[in-house]
Amino acid sequence: MKTFISPNGVRKFTSGKVLPTETITVNDFIPSVEKFKGSITNNNDNTQLSFELNRDDIIYGLGQNVRGINKRGHIYEAFCSDDPNHTPDKKSLYGAHNFFIVHGAINWGMYIDFPGKITYDVGFTNSNLLDILIEGVDFDIYYFEGTLKEIVNQFRTLIGQSYVPPKWAFGYQQCRWSYEDQSKVNAIADGFEAHDIPVDAIYLDIDYMEDYKDFTVSEARFPDFQALINTLKEKDIKLVPIIDAGVKIEKDYSVYEDGVKHNYFCNDNQGKPFVAAVWPGKVHFPDVLNKEVREWFGNQYHAFLEMGIEGFWNDMNEPAIFYSEDGLKDAIEFVKNQEGKNLDINTFFALKDSILNISNSNKDYKSMYHRMTTEDGELLVNHYDVHNLYGYNITRAADEGFKRFDDNKRFFMLTRASHIGMAKHSGIWTGDNHSWWEHLKLNIQMMPSLGMAGFLYAGADTGGFGFNASAELVVRWLEFSMFTPLLRNHSAMGTRVQEPWQFDDETTKHLRDIIRMRYALVPYLYSEFMKANINGNLLFSPLSFAFEDEQSKRVEDQLLLGDEIMLTPVYEQNAKGRYVYLPEDMVMYLIKSYEDLESKPFELLHKGYHHIELDTHETAVFIRKNKLLVLTKPHNRVSQLNNDELVVIGFVESAAEYNLYNDDGSSFDFRDGKFTKTNFKVVKEQSNYSVSVDTNDYSVSAVTFYLIDDLGDCQVVKQGIVQDKPKLV
Amino acid sequence: MKTFISPNGVRKFTSGKVLPTETITVNDFIPSVEKFKGSITNNNDNTQLSFELNRDDIIYGLGQNVRGINKRGHIYEAFCSDDPNHTPDKKSLYGAHNFFIVHGAINWGMYIDFPGKITYDVGFTNSNLLDILIEGVDFDIYYFEGTLKEIVNQFRTLIGQSYVPPKWAFGYQQCRWSYEDQSKVNAIADGFEAHDIPVDAIYLDIDYMEDYKDFTVSEARFPDFQALINTLKEKDIKLVPIIDAGVKIEKDYSVYEDGVKHNYFCNDNQGKPFVAAVWPGKVHFPDVLNKEVREWFGNQYHAFLEMGIEGFWNDMNEPAIFYSEDGLKDAIEFVKNQEGKNLDINTFFALKDSILNISNSNKDYKSMYHRMTTEDGELLVNHYDVHNLYGYNITRAADEGFKRFDDNKRFFMLTRASHIGMAKHSGIWTGDNHSWWEHLKLNIQMMPSLGMAGFLYAGADTGGFGFNASAELVVRWLEFSMFTPLLRNHSAMGTRVQEPWQFDDETTKHLRDIIRMRYALVPYLYSEFMKANINGNLLFSPLSFAFEDEQSKRVEDQLLLGDEIMLTPVYEQNAKGRYVYLPEDMVMYLIKSYEDLESKPFELLHKGYHHIELDTHETAVFIRKNKLLVLTKPHNRVSQLNNDELVVIGFVESAAEYNLYNDDGSSFDFRDGKFTKTNFKVVKEQSNYSVSVDTNDYSVSAVTFYLIDDLGDCQVVKQGIVQDKPKLV
Repeated sequence: MKTFISPNGVRKFTSGKVLPTETITVNDFIPSVEKFKGSITNNNDNTQLSFELNRDDIIYGLGQNVRGINKRGHIYEAFCSDDPNHTPDKKSLYGAHNFFIVHGAINWGMYIDFPGKITYDVGFTNSNLLDILIEGVDFDIYYFEGTLKEIVNQFRTLIGQSYVPPKWAFGYQQCRWSYEDQSKVNAIADGFEAHDIPVDAIYLDIDYMEDYKDFTVSEARFPDFQALINTLKEKDIKLVPIIDAGVKIEKDYSVYEDGVKHNYFCNDNQGKPFVAAVWPGKVHFPDVLNKEVREWFGNQYHAFLEMGIEGFWNDMNEPAIFYSEDGLKDAIEFVKNQEGKNLDINTFFALKDSILNISNSNKDYKSMYHRMTTEDGELLVNHYDVHNLYGYNITRAADEGFKRFDDNKRFFMLTRASHIGMAKHSGIWTGDNHSWWEHLKLNIQMMPSLGMAGFLYAGADTGGFGFNASAELVVRWLEFSMFTPLLRNHSAMGTRVQEPWQFDDETTKHLRDIIRMRYALVPYLYSEFMKANINGNLLFSPLSFAFEDEQSKRVEDQLLLGDEIMLTPVYEQNAKGRYVYLPEDMVMYLIKSYEDLESKPFELLHKGYHHIELDTHETAVFIRKNKLLVLTKPHNRVSQLNNDELVVIGFVESAAEYNLYNDDGSSFDFRDGKFTKTNFKVVKEQSNYSVSVDTNDYSVSAVTFYLIDDLGDCQVVKQGIVQDKPKLV
Repeated sequence: MKTFISPNGVRKFTSGKVLPTETITVNDFIPSVEKFKGSITNNNDNTQLSFELNRDDIIYGLGQNVRGINKRGHIYEAFCSDDPNHTPDKKSLYGAHNFFIVHGAINWGMYIDFPGKITYDVGFTNSNLLDILIEGVDFDIYYFEGTLKEIVNQFRTLIGQSYVPPKWAFGYQQCRWSYEDQSKVNAIADGFEAHDIPVDAIYLDIDYMEDYKDFTVSEARFPDFQALINTLKEKDIKLVPIIDAGVKIEKDYSVYEDGVKHNYFCNDNQGKPFVAAVWPGKVHFPDVLNKEVREWFGNQYHAFLEMGIEGFWNDMNEPAIFYSEDGLKDAIEFVKNQEGKNLDINTFFALKDSILNISNSNKDYKSMYHRMTTEDGELLVNHYDVHNLYGYNITRAADEGFKRFDDNKRFFMLTRASHIGMAKHSGIWTGDNHSWWEHLKLNIQMMPSLGMAGFLYAGADTGGFGFNASAELVVRWLEFSMFTPLLRNHSAMGTRVQEPWQFDDETTKHLRDIIRMRYALVPYLYSEFMKANINGNLLFSPLSFAFEDEQSKRVEDQLLLGDEIMLTPVYEQNAKGRYVYLPEDMVMYLIKSYEDLESKPFELLHKGYHHIELDTHETAVFIRKNKLLVLTKPHNRVSQLNNDELVVIGFVESAAEYNLYNDDGSSFDFRDGKFTKTNFKVVKEQSNYSVSVDTNDYSVSAVTFYLIDDLGDCQVVKQGIVQDKPKLV
């Protein structure tokens, strides 16, 4: 392997020549003589890496996957998979994120830049080994050392800043597979109005299309799509349609005709467009690893953009394959041959498997080819070898298409499949989870590793997609999602409806209170999101990123959100409270509703272990020592939020300071320095506070401080703001 | 409904005439005018019961099922199901146990005596309702009120004493699907010897049979079965073969020929033996709801008993059906008809489902008939209507067969499917779980509800059956199973081997220490098991059964074991400790190994919430106030255990007393008062203890007391026992 080093000390090891994943945006490496940390061996066409683990080492990362924050004790795969059963035995979900950190006596991290399958045996087969199998010999490895924060920062600097959504994307979003027609969508919008519940977006799942054809709208069910968009726009609600990866094979369907004409689809081994079956029936897959195809496919979005659509979600882009013609033929043939036979049991199971294993088969992936654009021109590559780049590039096609439409407007974009590097182009949701308490916990535990991989704009299907949700689960889940950048309630066809008013009156009230509280949090969430993005930090981090004690390393169900607060979500059925570990004294803000602020629901809790009572409608947020949490007065749309009545809750032992970031929320002008900063300072002298607010945000006019000291006493200080001119930029 | 009352206040409500489930062993009811507590309505052939729940009511019971100790917030079914995926969305597992308790301002319990399907919506659809749908109009309902303990006791008194296994069944048991031949079984036995690990039983899964034919042995793989039995017997290891429900259809196979000749099998709607396919291929099911068939089938066990086999496990007796001839034919026909068609997506999913839903279909269950023995003679009943009685009665057949063979010998028996009332005949294991941490937790949470249904001799497949186990999971799981009456390590074909020496040397040592500790615990476990059984109490109970504070009601991951100790198992990956709630001061005994006792690993912890450190090989047991825990010196077989060197660990504030029950462990003579009782008394006066041991067990000769006081100080008191004559019987 060739070895390089960057000015900030990142090592790069190169084996052969990696296919262009285009995940690295900075390349300032110079040759070096560094030695590779672990053992590395080649077996046939594979590469085996092996690293010794100390008994108490913790492994972070691997992005979107099952199990805990500490990934030790399981085998994972980086291989984008459409598998809705996120049980603990699974090795991969929808994303392939080859970044991890070993947290021990020395902290080190690694990013393996490789587009095919990689398997990680993280202390499973042998408790003290991390074994990594790369299915190939051409790859780059980046190696990092430092504090946990530094390692994440080094990696994130390499892959570039992440996707920035429009600010309305921080509002509440409502989805279901499917709101079946135009009147249903209007009824859902009306439901929010009738129940006085904030909302910023309503989604369209696959049934809005004509026969599941991308970029079409069913005339029968959505007779006046433009009117629907307009009606919702008047209500300031965004309509977010889905786009799937497969393009339906249908004569006279322009996307299909165009794609075939220009050879824009992935081919089979005969050089003909590869045929798979997904929702529309038979489809071709746009060959988005080819730059020309990306441009073509990205341009397909323009018609919707012209109509006023401002956001999309891309689904089924692992790509999911229900079956291929050959796969189905083989399976039917196998089943047919068993007819009338006295099946032995092995044959019966083979019969079951022949049908069960028909979807997403490697055989199909290995029968598909790309004409990949590389610096040396077009290269014919087998899909299996670059599988993890597909979802990435089809969503990148959309993003590039948006930029061609308007290069200074932020469009909303979510994708299911992903890869490192894709974080530049889109947010993600965590796929087709279930209404299981276990999946609320998984949601909590997944947020930090998603952030490490660059996915800051992320969240799970709140309430759970598959299976039926109880009112309690939806309430508890929302109490966590209240803090995730993507807050989307989504449920599957055939499951219990779970819009916020679908349970009982008490639940509707709780959900309204939680969603309103979310809107109160938007300034803080947006500010921390933008800072984490710009500075290459995490938005959600494990406690060990800020605290060095042994206990903090082991906490799997509490998260730091930005630098100011700690979350302790309840994720167990019928629970009336939970245990909490505090690495230092903190102030608990017991949230019932925004209005309840006036009752000063704050309590000082000391460093150590605690059990806190949290009834179903109560959420705890912990404010760290000498830190400030900013809230605004909630409204029913993000666009209605302004900073004229701010609330600052501070745990101030001596002095605290917070800079609230804000910008226009819709353009990229912030990159030119067009953003506002509101600086809050609190200094405590004996039992008195002096507070100051320094801002270039003209909307800021009154700030109420709730200041809790190290005895737990709360003082309220009100501050009017008289602004002269912007001081801070 | 007709209403009755028993002398101890149990109410009975009778609707129509229930089919004889034979679950109730006491019938001292007299007519009464009591009113039914909830609402009751008939819809067509179903009956709907409805009960209001208060906001904080807790629901215990429903026996073997998914989810927590508190069953509120989900829909459950009583319908014996062979489903190996025990995910939280499932409604039923292998057992059907229609007993539950509502724990609130008033505690009440209910047993619904009914052999068909019942659905329980426990505050799911409506948080404040318990809705029960009985698929029938003929049933008895028993209604209980009192303390939680009283309600369980009333119910357990009605259904009679539970199965009592031979004492060796409290030893460590090793299983795998499958130890493929005679030499492998011997090698496993040798493995325990080579690694100096205690063991009392090795199991044979289905592959020991000739073509999966019940009561046969493969000559190729087990050429000298008698020699194998003898060799193991010399080592004092029991061999436990499996028996499945389905009898292979094969000419000249005597069980088949005999059964057909006498019409002993369940019939189809043509009156011909119903054909299902399971492991042996095509089978018939013995019609064990018929007394004559039960006798015939039970007698089949005698040949094995003659050879020296002393225990069995009954599997696949829900009964599981892989497919029926009609079901398979329909599915293949459906698949065949899709050949060459351009499938739309709905048809594709229908195709998948046609194959997926072929097993355990209600259509098949509804095509099968029994000639059920009733007091009015033989009654032709559809299998679906009495489905939950099948596993019960096929295992009862075995038990009745054993008793005919030797009515004063305890045979070992485990079954997968079960029903209330079957607890008289056999123990159960919790079915085909997975090597998931979630299933260790499920095992913990299921133990109390199994006990409520009468299943005291119970345990899960330790380490997990399906999927691959990590060393850490096997260690942690065994740390819990160390306390369950059934302690069996079992794993499935194709998964990682998990005998105690299959990981690394450190893990082997830990597992040896844990299993040895289990043997040290056998006297206490056996004593508590027998007392719980005789007195109709729980062996494992939720904290609320002993403590009345609000916190105790909510604890879902700690259990009381007998009256003396509390368990706080670790069930999370990579954990180095856990939270513990103490409703009163207790002494923590930190178990590393039996030998480590001498280091006095005891710590007094005060009432309240705690976080305790527990490294992977450490188990915590909490000794309650003024209670004593008895240990014996471990040996490698239960038969080698004796009471000559006992250890008593006591948390004594003022005075404590414990009666250790023991008997011959192999016969039913205990029913005639032939058992021993060793009474330990400790009285504390200031800082001195006076101890006494009063016993009719002649083996008891030396007792070492470790006595911890309410300051946490530990004193060691040694007591030699000079026995004159038995005082206590």
